[in-house]
Parts: sequence; structure tokens; C-alpha cells
Amino acid sequence: MISSQYTKELCSRDSDAKIVLLVIDGLGGLPHPATGKSELETAQLPNLDALAKGGACGLLSPLGAGFTPGSGPAHLALFGYDPWQNQIGRGALSALGLGLDFARGDVAARLNFCTVDAEGRVSDRRAGRIPTEKGRQLCEVLKAVAVPEVEVQVAAEMEYRAGVVLRGAGLGDQVSDSDPQVTGVPPKPLSALAPGSERTVEVADAFLAQAAALLADEHPANMVLLRGFGRYPELMSMDEAYGLKALGIAGYPMYRGVAGAVGMDVEEVGWDLESEFALLESRYADYDFFYVHVKKTDSAGEDGDFDLKVRLLEELDEYIPRLLALQPEVLIVTGDHSTPSIMRSHSWHPVPTVIASQWTLADAAGEFSERGCSAGSLGIAPAASLMAHALAHARRLDKFGA
Amino acid sequence: MISSQYTKELCSRDSDAKIVLLVIDGLGGLPHPATGKSELETAQLPNLDALAKGGACGLLSPLGAGFTPGSGPAHLALFGYDPWQNQIGRGALSALGLGLDFARGDVAARLNFCTVDAEGRVSDRRAGRIPTEKGRQLCEVLKAVAVPEVEVQVAAEMEYRAGVVLRGAGLGDQVSDSDPQVTGVPPKPLSALAPGSERTVEVADAFLAQAAALLADEHPANMVLLRGFGRYPELMSMDEAYGLKALGIAGYPMYRGVAGAVGMDVEEVGWDLESEFALLESRYADYDFFYVHVKKTDSAGEDGDFDLKVRLLEELDEYIPRLLALQPEVLIVTGDHSTPSIMRSHSWHPVPTVIASQWTLADAAGEFSERGCSAGSLGIAPAASLMAHALAHARRLDKFGA
Repeated sequence: MISSQYTKELCSRDSDAKIVLLVIDGLGGLPHPATGKSELETAQLPNLDALAKGGACGLLSPLGAGFTPGSGPAHLALFGYDPWQNQIGRGALSALGLGLDFARGDVAARLNFCTVDAEGRVSDRRAGRIPTEKGRQLCEVLKAVAVPEVEVQVAAEMEYRAGVVLRGAGLGDQVSDSDPQVTGVPPKPLSALAPGSERTVEVADAFLAQAAALLADEHPANMVLLRGFGRYPELMSMDEAYGLKALGIAGYPMYRGVAGAVGMDVEEVGWDLESEFALLESRYADYDFFYVHVKKTDSAGEDGDFDLKVRLLEELDEYIPRLLALQPEVLIVTGDHSTPSIMRSHSWHPVPTVIASQWTLADAAGEFSERGCSAGSLGIAPAASLMAHALAHARRLDKFGA
Repeated sequence: MISSQYTKELCSRDSDAKIVLLVIDGLGGLPHPATGKSELETAQLPNLDALAKGGACGLLSPLGAGFTPGSGPAHLALFGYDPWQNQIGRGALSALGLGLDFARGDVAARLNFCTVDAEGRVSDRRAGRIPTEKGRQLCEVLKAVAVPEVEVQVAAEMEYRAGVVLRGAGLGDQVSDSDPQVTGVPPKPLSALAPGSERTVEVADAFLAQAAALLADEHPANMVLLRGFGRYPELMSMDEAYGLKALGIAGYPMYRGVAGAVGMDVEEVGWDLESEFALLESRYADYDFFYVHVKKTDSAGEDGDFDLKVRLLEELDEYIPRLLALQPEVLIVTGDHSTPSIMRSHSWHPVPTVIASQWTLADAAGEFSERGCSAGSLGIAPAASLMAHALAHARRLDKFGA
């Protein structure tokens, strides 16, 4: 399941070299029409540019030419897992991130509070974006749901979003969404998309019926929609795959989820850089590998806010000296995917990447940007090959063959 | 077993264009901390730089990002064989290089003369690095070993090293080493690592018992260790794969071994460039393909001798005009892997490569170096793709499809 079986076979456990992987979500961008410069090219990034000048640079492609990844596959690729072969349902990612008791055999789904009218038609798929606190209260209400022989857990995420985990015998995860994606129509009936998931449909239908009754007098959140059914991902841990004791540092729950799915320890932490970097510093002695996730750049890109993304990159740049002060043997700065502000969405463009270590060739990349890194010595490489690079630079991969 | 079946299907045998593949062992390097320049960048290489300016350049990755190859896989990749799928045990490589009568079904192992104390504990795993001539004499002594129904051959390599070949029915190669890797303990008992190799253990145990008796009065080489058991590699020949009559020119036996394993003719020749180039010139009319191996650069890198590696590269550069004088239709200069002097070991870094032919685009590479070639038109390519390039530039690959 990891990108190359040889990584596992050749990984050496007798090194204490540390690897820090800083993932700037949605890092890559495209030029602003008015200036011809991308977000990275517009930002003043003295520390990242210095890293690029001294390290090995390139562009990482999460899924290969032309394919745009979601956050799950994009992260799995960075962690060295084949992103096509290891799919995690969005519901499973959410459940992992919420810290629910979610284990092998369980099935999770995303739960959105919504508004339905008197005829049962969805009038607002997000229930007026109720505040997070209201979402928490409603999740408490839903704890009254009881389905025979099934354990049901519900936990609030942000605003109108929550997650549900079902535990019981014979639960498959090939179940369609009830979210109709448009308003003015009723929720879609759930259906099994493959044999073995019929029982999940029965259980989820029972859950939906009871939820409707429990929320009937609420406003605006008087119903729920379920989507993104997915089983607990059965992935090899990074310890098993690479011999790395790994810590995942991410303020946003879903990224703790994907980190947890590959066996990283995770701790709750704030979304802000200060909290994340302080956690890194405080736990630096305890782990071999650190995944640090920066979320807001992606949100700015998705909102089409070019200037905000530039400012967030500049703010991050000021934290780079704190990383360097830890003196990791290998420091990698990259993104999970590109989110060009002018596209307002994830994209397929490969992602600027720098590897800084004692064993890199300082290459021709003069700045940390899309065009700068395209002159680097790593070329355009699959994101799933990054972990082999990381392990090699940490001297954690043995020679293959005599 | 070759990297692409299409190479074989499309190779054309009606060309007489010649291909010279010059392999500079451990070619790639990393910058010296004091100068920021690699071995190749430090050396004065007017002839190689001119080749790079006029040819197609790139970086060859033996095993893909991050993986460090041994000499066997690195060479098989250069010859167009999938290096992961075609593994040759070190003992088999040695035996091939020694010119032993080694054929399909035989099993070879490396034999090291060692010193054991009165209690049978290994006190020196290399028997004081006895001179090569002494090693030869002791191999003559070991010719007295006789095992019923098995043919045993022993041949000296350098110093304390030798090779042994066993021929007989039912000999597998999944056998552990007797070399304990440390001193102060007895040799490890051999064991079969998989069913089918039990008979090899019996035969090798008989060999070891007789060797101990034959060498009992010798000093310091009073015992032998066996390691790296491997069967004769069953690889398609380069003639079969590519229609090439090939000559392997290598002073160091192991490289003649890997050349022989892919069906090249090999001849004993000195380690020095003069001997190797003289052999190339004298046999130039007789073959289509020439593999010329330069060993000492790798040894200098492994010894951490940056300056020596620089001087050896400069010495080699002076021989390039002799290659050009032969006017091969395709001249390729590359390495099997990188051996940066500052790492004192093989590494994963891709290897500078130039293809000179009438049909190359002179690209942006201004010099023959890691950074120079990273600006070239071949990009970072798998080493196993090189043979298709070589055949194409020799007009020996037909069009695919109508």
C-alpha cells in the first residue's frame, strides 16, 4: 500500500535523524492577471527563498499530470502511500479528525444539519450555517438515536458539519449520499452501491428517521443529510512502513484524521501558526518525523483571495527560522496540492517543493515558487516518491543489492 | 526482464552503427563544503564539457527517487534490465567476474580467507589482508576439497577474497552467510533460508570442514568464510534483447561479471585507463556495443578522497579524444550511481549523463556536472530507459505502429 514495497524493505531503523515535513495547504498558485506573478512570486519570502537557493527543489505532482486531488489522496501521496490505491472516504477522514472512537470494521459518514420545509424538501443544505456551538448542542440531541445491535456515535465538527460513526456486524461502506446537492427537492433515499452494504442502508435509514423526529422542532436545523460513507482505512502505519515515530500537527481536524490513519500520534492544537509551531518545539525530542499542516493558505485560495494568500505566505515565512533553529536533519517544505486563487479551487498543477539537508545539491532554483522550483534538480516528481527522498536524506534507507 | 518489452520487439538488426557506453563508477557527487562545488564542477574537464555542450544531457536515476543502488542493480539498469526484478547475488557477480565455469543451475558464493583462534573464534575477518598472490596459492590448496557428486571450483579475486562455484543436483541459493560480521565469535552455522536449499548447506558445510583441515597450519589465513550465495543469473542476453554483439571492458572482475551475465563477451584487462582504452581500440571492428568501465572514481569517493576523485576525472577526460577518434555513432558517458566524496558511500542522487550522436539536440547543459546536466533535455530519467535512447540514436529501434 505504500508507494514502493522497497521503501519498507530497505528502511533502516538505526538512525536518529529527524525529518520535518511542512505542508502548506493549497500552496501552488497561478499568476495574477494584473501582474503576471503568482501568489508565491508576489509574496516577500526571504526565508523560503534562502531555503530554495540552498536546497534541492522541484515540483511534486500528487496524482500525475492533469489530475486534481482532494485533501485525502494529496496527503496520502505526501506520506508515501499510493494515492490511487488507498482511498479514504471523506466521512472516514472527518471521523478520524474528530477523535471519535473509530476502528476497523466501523463505517463513518459526514453529517450536515439542514433545513427542510413542511413538505420535506431541502430548503437550505447548510441550515443557515448555524454556529459551531449550536451544532454541538444538536449533536447532543442526536445521541438519543438508538438502533438495535448498532453503536452510533455523533460528534460536531465546524458550523453545520458533524460526523457519525456506525459500529456493528455486516456494515459495508458502499452507500450513496442523501444530500441532494440542490435545494427544493427531498433528501435522496440511501441505496447500497454494492452488495454487502445493504445493512448500512437499513441502519442509516433508521438513524435518519429518528433524527428527523428529534430535530422536528428545531429551526433552522430541523433535519440532517448524510454523505461520504467510508470504512475505517486499513493503512500500514508509518512506523511499520518506515520505522518512523511520527507526530501530526494540524489545527484542522481532518488533517489530524489523515495523520492518524497512517499511525501518527496526533494532539489537538489551535489553527494558528504560533500554536502549531509551539507544539512542534515542545515535542521535538519525542519523535522522528513531524508533519506540520498549514491550512489557511488553501482557504484563501478557495475564496479567490489572492492578496490574503500572499499575506498568509509572508506570515508563514517568518516562522521558517524557528524550524531551522530545531536543526532537523531533513526539512521539507511543500504543499498537498495547488489552489490557485484565480481558480478558486484545488488544481492539478504540481507543487513547489524544497528539500533542505546536508546531502542535497544546491540547485538552480533561485526562489521558492512555481517557476523557481521548476528549475530545480528534483524535476517534476510524483508526490508519493517524496518519502523515499526524505528517508534517503535522513540516511534511513539502506542500499539495494550488492 | 528487460526494462521494456518494446525495446526487444522494435529493435532492428540491420544497422551497423556502434554504441560506446562509458560508465564512470560513482560518477555523481556533491559540493565540497569549502567551495560549494562538486567533484565534477571542481575538475577541469574540457573534453567532457565539450561533449555536454554538443550533446543531449540529463540525470539518470538508477532505482528511482531516494533509492541507493549496489553495483549490480545499477549496472543492470544501465544495460536496460529492470533493476528491481533482476537481482544477482554478490557471490554470483564475483564468480562471473572471475571467469569461473559458471552456468545455469550452479550456485556461487564469496569466499573470504580469515583468521580463527585456537577456540575457533574469528579474530580477523580478512586474514590480515593477505596479498593477492598468497590468496592465489591458498585457492590452489583448496582445490583438494572433494564433495561426492558435486563439482567444486575456487578462484582467487583480490587479497583475501575469492569465489567458489558449486555444481550438482538440487542446489538452491537461499543460504545464510557464515561470516559473523564481527570478530571474537565463531563463524555462523549455515542455514537454508528457504526450502530447496538444504542440499547447498550440506555441500557447503562439507567444503568448510575440509577447508579448515587444509588450512589448519596456515597463518594468518587458517579458515574461510562464505557469504552472498547466489545462483547463476538467468538474464536475456543483449544480443537476444537488442540484437547487439557486445564487449564488456572492465579491469575489475565484478564488472566483467555483470557484463557476462547479460551475454557480453569479456576479456581480462588491467585496471588502468590505458589498458582499457587500448582493448577498446583493438576490438572496435568486432562488436556493435562496448561497455567501458572506470572503477577508481568510485573507490576515491568511498574513501572520501575528494581531490583524488577530481584528479581521476581529469585523467579520464584526457582519454575522451581517443573515444571520439573511433567515431562511434553513439557515445554515452554516464555513471552507474553517485558516490559523493563527502558521503563516503554510494548514494541515491541521479547521475550526470551525456548522449553524443548525430541525432541529439545540443541542449542547455553548459558543462558535464550534476547541475549542468540537470538543465539538459533528457530530464531526470530512469537509468533503465538509457538503452532505448542508445538504440534509438543508433537508428536501431523501429517505429511503433503505422
